[in-house]
Amino acid sequence: MHDETVLYVCMTCRAEGDSSEIRAGARLLAALKEQAAGTQALRIEGVECLSVCKRPCTVAVASPGRWTYVYGDLDAEASAATILAGIGLYAGTTDGIVPWRERPEAFRKGVVARIPPFTTSTDTP
Amino acid sequence: MHDETVLYVCMTCRAEGDSSEIRAGARLLAALKEQAAGTQALRIEGVECLSVCKRPCTVAVASPGRWTYVYGDLDAEASAATILAGIGLYAGTTDGIVPWRERPEAFRKGVVARIPPFTTSTDTP
Repeated sequence: MHDETVLYVCMTCRAEGDSSEIRAGARLLAALKEQAAGTQALRIEGVECLSVCKRPCTVAVASPGRWTYVYGDLDAEASAATILAGIGLYAGTTDGIVPWRERPEAFRKGVVARIPPFTTSTDTP
Repeated sequence: MHDETVLYVCMTCRAEGDSSEIRAGARLLAALKEQAAGTQALRIEGVECLSVCKRPCTVAVASPGRWTYVYGDLDAEASAATILAGIGLYAGTTDGIVPWRERPEAFRKGVVARIPPFTTSTDTP
């Protein structure tokens, strides 16, 4: 399952000044699912909270053997295509690290954190 | 290896206004390793950068089957004992979620992000 990538989308994120009944995070999740329909080896999951509450909307991308990235400051309406393009680049790497210049601007500016791929003690020589 | 917990420590973090030759992140890593010596099932790893550059010092804690947490605004000199206490609580949970009130204040205030435990499609019924 090395190639399976998961995109976590915070459904609790509320855009600043937005009083819509459906939260910005939930709208982003719906847009991502719609635009990603049929994409191989990508799973999109809604999450209650990614604890990046000050930088809505927020997503995280993870894959076994690859770095995990967390991104914030994403727009519920406009970001879905950009996120999916960025994740396509991510999925094309072996370690999850896309060269800086190739990353979408929204990922360069919106990066919140990155976490190394998890390896158990027995994985490392 | 469900119980193995990994503490990633950003070695690149530089405290504001600190021009010491050894960066704050590297000092925190050394303090953590010293104070954690002998702790079972905890691995401490230095990492080049966790991309939380605006909130030094930064650590992340991960464990298979548990949520991953990223924390920032940690003090190189004073935080090691608090971090290790917080990680002890984390390691005592099944999912990595420590009740809010039990978390060290440094974790409550310093949380940068959290990411769900990774499960492959075949893991979920």
